[in-house]
Amino acid sequence: MNAALDLTGQMRQMGQAALAASDALSVASTQTKNEALRAAAAAIRAHKKDILDANVEDLAQARARALSTALLDRLELNDQRVEAMARGLEEIIGLSDPIGAIAAHWTRPNGLDISRVRVPLGIIGIIYESRPNVTADAGALCLKSGNVVILRGGSESERSNRAIHACLVAGLTAAGLPEACIQLVPTTDRAAVGLMLSGMTEFIDVIVPRGGKSLVARVQQEARVPVIGHLEGNCHVYVDRDADLSMARRIVLNAKLRRTGICGAAETLLVDRAAIATHLAPLIKDLLEAGCEVRGDATVQSVDARVRAATEADWYTEYLDAIIAARVVNGVDEAIAHIARYGSAHTESIVTANAATAARFLQQVDSAIVLHNASTQFADGGEFGMGAEIGISTDRFHARGPVGVEQLTSYKYVVRGTGQTRP
Amino acid sequence: MNAALDLTGQMRQMGQAALAASDALSVASTQTKNEALRAAAAAIRAHKKDILDANVEDLAQARARALSTALLDRLELNDQRVEAMARGLEEIIGLSDPIGAIAAHWTRPNGLDISRVRVPLGIIGIIYESRPNVTADAGALCLKSGNVVILRGGSESERSNRAIHACLVAGLTAAGLPEACIQLVPTTDRAAVGLMLSGMTEFIDVIVPRGGKSLVARVQQEARVPVIGHLEGNCHVYVDRDADLSMARRIVLNAKLRRTGICGAAETLLVDRAAIATHLAPLIKDLLEAGCEVRGDATVQSVDARVRAATEADWYTEYLDAIIAARVVNGVDEAIAHIARYGSAHTESIVTANAATAARFLQQVDSAIVLHNASTQFADGGEFGMGAEIGISTDRFHARGPVGVEQLTSYKYVVRGTGQTRP
Repeated sequence: MNAALDLTGQMRQMGQAALAASDALSVASTQTKNEALRAAAAAIRAHKKDILDANVEDLAQARARALSTALLDRLELNDQRVEAMARGLEEIIGLSDPIGAIAAHWTRPNGLDISRVRVPLGIIGIIYESRPNVTADAGALCLKSGNVVILRGGSESERSNRAIHACLVAGLTAAGLPEACIQLVPTTDRAAVGLMLSGMTEFIDVIVPRGGKSLVARVQQEARVPVIGHLEGNCHVYVDRDADLSMARRIVLNAKLRRTGICGAAETLLVDRAAIATHLAPLIKDLLEAGCEVRGDATVQSVDARVRAATEADWYTEYLDAIIAARVVNGVDEAIAHIARYGSAHTESIVTANAATAARFLQQVDSAIVLHNASTQFADGGEFGMGAEIGISTDRFHARGPVGVEQLTSYKYVVRGTGQTRP
Repeated sequence: MNAALDLTGQMRQMGQAALAASDALSVASTQTKNEALRAAAAAIRAHKKDILDANVEDLAQARARALSTALLDRLELNDQRVEAMARGLEEIIGLSDPIGAIAAHWTRPNGLDISRVRVPLGIIGIIYESRPNVTADAGALCLKSGNVVILRGGSESERSNRAIHACLVAGLTAAGLPEACIQLVPTTDRAAVGLMLSGMTEFIDVIVPRGGKSLVARVQQEARVPVIGHLEGNCHVYVDRDADLSMARRIVLNAKLRRTGICGAAETLLVDRAAIATHLAPLIKDLLEAGCEVRGDATVQSVDARVRAATEADWYTEYLDAIIAARVVNGVDEAIAHIARYGSAHTESIVTANAATAARFLQQVDSAIVLHNASTQFADGGEFGMGAEIGISTDRFHARGPVGVEQLTSYKYVVRGTGQTRP
């Protein structure tokens, strides 16, 4: 048998195991699922040394392959990060179980009693890169939402993922759940990704990609099953003529610089032409003084010699770094038009004291999250009160915005009658 | 330019027009949309003769092509059916507008006010066969839900569809909405379907197929955009040992024979072995006497000489006709197992007076709709109180069960702050 056949067989075996596990997990009690999460958190703490040792090996290999500093940072684990992973699992215990929850309930004139009841999606395939903590987070979110998961991490974090996955399996076993509730693809062969996307349609119900543009593009291109996509966050802050200056300064600094590597970080600042005399210079100087590179149009450049000229490409760019593009626009309508043209429909904020202007922006900007007088960095399931999230969906279908346990469910209708027949 | 290039150009032009119309429609008021529907209904009544004339031509061609009686019946329009189409539009006027509706609203401890607001999906492609009324129904449902639609009907109903579509366009024009809100693909070239499925991904957000198995299979295979699938309804009624016999007889007859051609019609009857002495013969004789063909296992055959032997294929078959497969099972668990193996996860009903047995069935049967003591023929958006529907989804993703205006929406998060930044 050649290697390709081996891989196909191996992956289909994982699919079969997932299907079998799905029957048990979909009807598992909240208590059982929480017990598995608690035991997994304990295992992560107990095996911290194993996890860190594995991570040291991953890091050494990554350095040998001369991977970027940003990637090394995402890959690196330490005491704190391992503890955060364990605590992350415990937070998911605290979330209410979406499965079996009644999302809606009504009675018909003929007496039929109808409930819309949440059920798992089924089997979720998660394809991710670099961050080993995704193994724990995604595994736990799927478990809590009654979904069996097949995880496929990046080759750079292979050893770390395996060590973390072993702790999740220990948790499942302790709770009497099938090990196959959370499986990790045991090979870094890229063909495994192709099989998950198009060769296992009878096993995998949904694919969630978590990674860079090239991964997401491959998934959108090849997937033969539904995808919960997480495209880039080219997020905008628009400072309107009626913005309170000090509020605008705080929001812009926070939106851009609190953390630059998250998808909700602002990438472009739009300033109303009517506010340039008062607002533009302080906003730009704040950013420059905080160490942020600014790439601006001619007006923005005129504010400070350190501002570099923005190119057309800058308006499309998600820097995920201390760089911001800045441009002057003619009021809210031009801001809306700029966002429609260059944005990625992720998260945008308007700063204004004018309720009508805000209402216009909130209605007309077609993004997953639109904010008024608040930082784009709130684009986060936890900040929304939804608990941990598997990402922010920029799709319109099924789930948009933060994807937490509730968004990982489907539903069915339960209809209770007393002998009704249809006339 | 060759014909294929022509078609591609033509379809992309439709896509561009749809995009432009989408901006206007997504923010159109409820009043404007309802005005368009009212004017379209009036146009259908005013142009009844044109529609019926076109339909006569379609029917003549269908007869010449020796299409089946069932297809001819679906294709045929008459005074009553045209009036029903007009009234269908008026019913959609009565539905509450999902767009802008606040699906959820909460406040965070930091004062952020978060709303989940319904927005349109965008541009919907509907590919359908034979029934010309789908032109009106689907066009109107998309309009009400703020979605631009590109309709692609079957070649057999080409003239009827065009005549109906002209009335919808008249309605749009009367309300001042762009004509391109509802477009009908002006060719029956099958390549147009391929383009909608995979060659217009920047224009079409969702595909809804309405038709037979071969259409649905093609869509599932080729679509590069999300699909709201409507697979077959191989629906089951399980008559439990604790079923009230007279209730079971009424439900089985209604579930199978009220209308045999709808997806919620029962196709297989499962009878608990513990009830065969009392329940089996009356249930089977009722069906036979009502003119239903019964295909049964050995036990069912022993009841009446008219029962033919069921083959393995029968358990998988959606007859959409006065035929039923019937089998004896060992209690609710074997009924659940039979449904899991042969069913299409559409609609299943249990008849029993035993609450625990019912609860087990309702929880463990993984179908879009599960009923207790009620006919499967209630599988219908109207019967659920959701108004008109575009079909019953057997998918788990995005929408499951009846797909009405609410299921044709996405949402966005609107977050209102007072200057909050993220710590």
